[in-house]
Amino acid sequence: MTVIEKTTWIGKPVPKLDAPKKVTGEARYVQDIELPGMLHGKILRSSRVHARIVRLDTSAAEKLEGVHAVITAADTPGVPLGHGKDNPPLKGDKVRSLRDEIAAVAAETEEIAEEALRLIEVEYEDLPAVFDPSAALLDDAPILHEEHPDNIPFAYDYEQGDVARGEADSDVVLENTFTLHFVTHCCMGVSGAVAEFDAEGNLTVHSQTQMPFLYKKEIAPVIGVPPEKIRVLQPTIGGGFGSKLDIYPFEPICIFLARETGRPVKLVFTREEEFVASPTRQPVELTLRSGVKKDGTLTFREVRTIHDNGAYTSWGATTPFVIMQTISSLYRVPHCSYRTTVVYTNNPYSGSFRGFGNLQATFAVESHMDRLAEAVEMDPLGFRLKNAQKPGETTPQGMVFRTCGLGECLETAAEKSGFVAKHARYAKGQDGPVKRGVGIASLLHVGGGAKIYRSDGCGTMLKMDDYGHVTVLTGASEIGQGSETVIAQFVAEELGLPISSIRVVNDDSEITPWDVGVHASRTTFIAGNSAQRAARKARKKLLEAAATKLGLDASELDLREANVTRADTGEVLVGLARLILSLHFADKSDVVMTTEYYEPPSVAQDKAFKGDVSASYAFGTQVVELEVDTETGVIRILRVTAAHDVGRVINLFGIQGQIEGGVAMGMGYALTEHLLVEDGVVQNPCFRDYKIVTAPEIPELDMHFIETEDPEGPSGAKGVGEAPSICIAAAIVNALYNATGTRFYSLPLTPERVLRGLKNGA
Amino acid sequence: MTVIEKTTWIGKPVPKLDAPKKVTGEARYVQDIELPGMLHGKILRSSRVHARIVRLDTSAAEKLEGVHAVITAADTPGVPLGHGKDNPPLKGDKVRSLRDEIAAVAAETEEIAEEALRLIEVEYEDLPAVFDPSAALLDDAPILHEEHPDNIPFAYDYEQGDVARGEADSDVVLENTFTLHFVTHCCMGVSGAVAEFDAEGNLTVHSQTQMPFLYKKEIAPVIGVPPEKIRVLQPTIGGGFGSKLDIYPFEPICIFLARETGRPVKLVFTREEEFVASPTRQPVELTLRSGVKKDGTLTFREVRTIHDNGAYTSWGATTPFVIMQTISSLYRVPHCSYRTTVVYTNNPYSGSFRGFGNLQATFAVESHMDRLAEAVEMDPLGFRLKNAQKPGETTPQGMVFRTCGLGECLETAAEKSGFVAKHARYAKGQDGPVKRGVGIASLLHVGGGAKIYRSDGCGTMLKMDDYGHVTVLTGASEIGQGSETVIAQFVAEELGLPISSIRVVNDDSEITPWDVGVHASRTTFIAGNSAQRAARKARKKLLEAAATKLGLDASELDLREANVTRADTGEVLVGLARLILSLHFADKSDVVMTTEYYEPPSVAQDKAFKGDVSASYAFGTQVVELEVDTETGVIRILRVTAAHDVGRVINLFGIQGQIEGGVAMGMGYALTEHLLVEDGVVQNPCFRDYKIVTAPEIPELDMHFIETEDPEGPSGAKGVGEAPSICIAAAIVNALYNATGTRFYSLPLTPERVLRGLKNGA
Repeated sequence: MTVIEKTTWIGKPVPKLDAPKKVTGEARYVQDIELPGMLHGKILRSSRVHARIVRLDTSAAEKLEGVHAVITAADTPGVPLGHGKDNPPLKGDKVRSLRDEIAAVAAETEEIAEEALRLIEVEYEDLPAVFDPSAALLDDAPILHEEHPDNIPFAYDYEQGDVARGEADSDVVLENTFTLHFVTHCCMGVSGAVAEFDAEGNLTVHSQTQMPFLYKKEIAPVIGVPPEKIRVLQPTIGGGFGSKLDIYPFEPICIFLARETGRPVKLVFTREEEFVASPTRQPVELTLRSGVKKDGTLTFREVRTIHDNGAYTSWGATTPFVIMQTISSLYRVPHCSYRTTVVYTNNPYSGSFRGFGNLQATFAVESHMDRLAEAVEMDPLGFRLKNAQKPGETTPQGMVFRTCGLGECLETAAEKSGFVAKHARYAKGQDGPVKRGVGIASLLHVGGGAKIYRSDGCGTMLKMDDYGHVTVLTGASEIGQGSETVIAQFVAEELGLPISSIRVVNDDSEITPWDVGVHASRTTFIAGNSAQRAARKARKKLLEAAATKLGLDASELDLREANVTRADTGEVLVGLARLILSLHFADKSDVVMTTEYYEPPSVAQDKAFKGDVSASYAFGTQVVELEVDTETGVIRILRVTAAHDVGRVINLFGIQGQIEGGVAMGMGYALTEHLLVEDGVVQNPCFRDYKIVTAPEIPELDMHFIETEDPEGPSGAKGVGEAPSICIAAAIVNALYNATGTRFYSLPLTPERVLRGLKNGA
Repeated sequence: MTVIEKTTWIGKPVPKLDAPKKVTGEARYVQDIELPGMLHGKILRSSRVHARIVRLDTSAAEKLEGVHAVITAADTPGVPLGHGKDNPPLKGDKVRSLRDEIAAVAAETEEIAEEALRLIEVEYEDLPAVFDPSAALLDDAPILHEEHPDNIPFAYDYEQGDVARGEADSDVVLENTFTLHFVTHCCMGVSGAVAEFDAEGNLTVHSQTQMPFLYKKEIAPVIGVPPEKIRVLQPTIGGGFGSKLDIYPFEPICIFLARETGRPVKLVFTREEEFVASPTRQPVELTLRSGVKKDGTLTFREVRTIHDNGAYTSWGATTPFVIMQTISSLYRVPHCSYRTTVVYTNNPYSGSFRGFGNLQATFAVESHMDRLAEAVEMDPLGFRLKNAQKPGETTPQGMVFRTCGLGECLETAAEKSGFVAKHARYAKGQDGPVKRGVGIASLLHVGGGAKIYRSDGCGTMLKMDDYGHVTVLTGASEIGQGSETVIAQFVAEELGLPISSIRVVNDDSEITPWDVGVHASRTTFIAGNSAQRAARKARKKLLEAAATKLGLDASELDLREANVTRADTGEVLVGLARLILSLHFADKSDVVMTTEYYEPPSVAQDKAFKGDVSASYAFGTQVVELEVDTETGVIRILRVTAAHDVGRVINLFGIQGQIEGGVAMGMGYALTEHLLVEDGVVQNPCFRDYKIVTAPEIPELDMHFIETEDPEGPSGAKGVGEAPSICIAAAIVNALYNATGTRFYSLPLTPERVLRGLKNGA
């Protein structure tokens, strides 16, 4: 670990700035918004999974007292939305899944709106449906979208090196098929929006979007309002995790209702609606062939996946971008081939979800790493270390690992958990029905943004008042991940101010400059760089003014504890507020305002999917120690030892929270969470039947931060928002194998499935 | 008039940007603010004009169901507020006027709060009171503030040249005493505020203040919250006219109630309360001696004034600053002496009010100009022209008239109204009871800000989105005067954009940079310069980017109609939005954000009140033609011909509106408005008894804009917000003299007073 210079805020535990308002109830979520004259919107959804709409009669609903508008597809421009632009906000001719939106109502109260929905008559003509992506690929499969008679909206094909040669070089080749299931984000705050038009047709949307600027661009053609006339205000957001990275029908529907009625309209999901009609993590069937030489050198990976796209195409269809990165570059793989087919079905459709395909990919790759190690009789740690990249390597896909803590993560997690000894001991067999196991897995993820859109940048505008209070206008949204606090830390550090002197404004697209959105773990890196550089400009101005005032050189001065000090001795020379006032009240009066636009030096991938897509890459290793009761199938996670290459810790509390949350989310994915979709119907749309990991199940967490000090990262930091959720499922199956000798290839590891697996050999 | 280059927006009639929301009811005034858990505040005011508070019992009020807090002075820090820092928000020991605040209540509803006020028991011990400022100067007068046993909080003493020599040079010396009365602002939106604290003790005030940044500084010690923890949000403001330039007790009271209850509190005046407890225009008794040589050359002015300060000291006490400017510098006056005594009385106290003393001063000076002209047998126009300054002159007080349209204003107003001929004709005597008269008067006012505070500057932050939409964050508040529209015009002009592409954000001190406030007709000049320069930086960046892209020189390019064009031919080369995107999506990606802080080159006056206090000076002449019915005393204004040196017209609609409004307000001052204060009690606190000028009384208005193109003004503009109200009263009395031969020295010219004057020789 490198020596870090003395800091006041960087690397320290800083409580989240939005915590007080959240714990006191002061935070205003979309549910809390009340506007004069506001109406309530509700959506009528399909009761069939695939059907033609033969008749739609809204006349009774329209007549209901208190109903201001009932709209159907006929009342809208019909422009489809979503990443695949295949999803009309309201469906006019046919429905393709049970969540499909058919009509919507705006009424005085939610109750009246619901009553109105019940009065809408819909006559369907059922069509044959398909729920299995493999079945959807058959020649006679039902066709969901006429434009895609093969039911394939997207396909990916990636090659590096020569897999045939890799296979020829191999002493061992293994192949398995991994089956990953439906889960959903379970944000504590359900989906919702409030829309209002002003007298001149300008639209204000109170939206939970994670990408206010792309939101304007994306929704504009759907609603027929130019993007420059759209203002996005973000209320406090009760969780995002990727779910709010696309636009879903409910937002334009809310906007259509506002336009139709000339009144503000609020449309908020019920919890059941949230389970049924919000995005999912995309189910994948992934077949992995891997090869290895006797000496433990990886030779090749060949992957085929089928993605269940559901009925419409959101970001879920693009997760292969991330999957292929892990396939190609998690450990040194000379030859690689990757083919994905994304297939329409009449199931719920998938969005982006923390990790964005990487949980699925890493589950497969890290399961195989254990199998390959065993095949060449190496211990899992040594095998991984042998294949782990070193700093300075460029992967065949073009990712440049300027820093790379993978080896150190592996070594630290293994050492701190006693992995090697325990793994050997548990593998020897244990008495009694309760068996212990340890499993190890690592991850690779983008850590410096991802050049997916044509700009991956973030803007900052900063101003100081006469008292040293700083307002930072940043494009970066706060969705609970703590970006507000981290941005304030960067600014407070540069300007030598208490954190309470910084206010971060991040919730109004009219006021804040461009940012591409919260995704790819990019905010600390990109928005942090932008804020830090804006603050440095302010610092420079202040130090130069102080130097002039004091007759010293700016290099002799520092800003500390709201004072200008001597850099060497820390002697206080003048209070910062006094300096600011003397600048403001000077003959050549000035106030401190700066701007910064930071665009990372990453590049878009080429057509062959090659290129250095991120300015930095994050690594991590997690060791799981668990107990499994072989008589009940119940797994108890005892301890997770996590070592993450975070570049540099910025907010210790924040990064601990990210790891705790990521581990819990990854555990849920591995053990308990399963959105049960049968014949296109969600069977468990409630928290009683959909089991997330809650506080009592959280294991002991031992966290270690590998500070590789990224040269481009702000103060050396890398992004780490998604990483902690990525490799835990793999570590769990590896630990389960260590405990029982039985290997599982599908998730979640519910007691029933574990018990059946242990009986049948998984 | 100079030739103005071709413009798209400058000088054109642009409807106010906030007009649609005002006419549709969408605008949210303080009355419309509703916050979760909000309570309603009400203030108990004194029922005596001067008394000790012997007993104050709030126990019954506290017990009333729905009452959350009852506060008295004992619950507050007791720090006095206002310009004179002599006004405790709640009065503990004694009351000095009928509007004095004694206690306040926060309750669930306004009705409960009012009921609670009635339950508060107050026992007074009356003190002798004084209502006449001259009486308050006597040795045995009651003392209002122990710190000022002479009842004189302020006094002013100004000299230029040598009045004795001026008098010796004079062929004629005249002396009169002018008596000016109480009027009040009559804003359509009554006073009110909403205050709320967050969990960390940060305060948000929804305030109608005209000076959000000074507000933070001024209110901080009164409420015991550091200024950097105060955020000022301005709702739509229903009129300011100077009334919101100071802090009055109701705002800290609202804040105390919010702190006491831990809930948002709204406190809004009734209309009666607005008449009784909002500021007034200060009554003045002004004695003017003026001298003139036979050839019409002014020799000296000597002025003594007594100001009725009322019970506390707000900005009204500082109007002598402006009065002395008119005394010293409206026309060329070699010798001048000016002494003011500001005197405490038990009357309502005075604030700042459009024109800020200049209505009173100009009424006296321009009345005397007519008298002096008559005395030396010159016509009123010729006499004024002889004494009017020329461009380039510096007045003895140090005002530098870089431009000066006074002569042109006089000539234009006279010519367009046919003044000279009419004046001569009407003066010859007229048959019948209804007589006609014309009167002329001019004005001098600051037109480029006023360096009263240590900074007279304004900051701007500007950003463009990917579509060419511009957000302008300005410190300058919109109080109905149209600054939002003018700022948008400057930006639209520079960037070649439609006005609808500009959004001006001006209502949140957290987000907007410093501005000293709306006063001294400074906003177009100061905030306009700031916005224009910020826009020019953006323009430069765009033209340079375009030049690089197109292989041309930036000087060959222009921005017009949202395009980059050839400067010479207007040929469209590339759309602005496309250029912005190409800048944003370039390798060296960038977005357009600029900042500008503009501080005018004016200087503070020295201790002798001399100095070039404004960056520019505005002039104007108004000719009034009226009819007076000598049998009823009723005056009817037939026509006002106004010629104003505005530097340059920016928004034709805006400047027309300012002149219409200023003339109406000045007419009200001259003819109908009178806050009747008897023994400290306002007798007419309602619009039935307090008569403002309404639409049917507005005369024909003939406006002429003298465009002197101020070298420092934005596009040549000067400030003109106050000017149109200043000289109309003088023009009216001059016209009345022209019609009847009777001269009036006090206002308002109600029918009773006119009739009595005509009978008694005024």
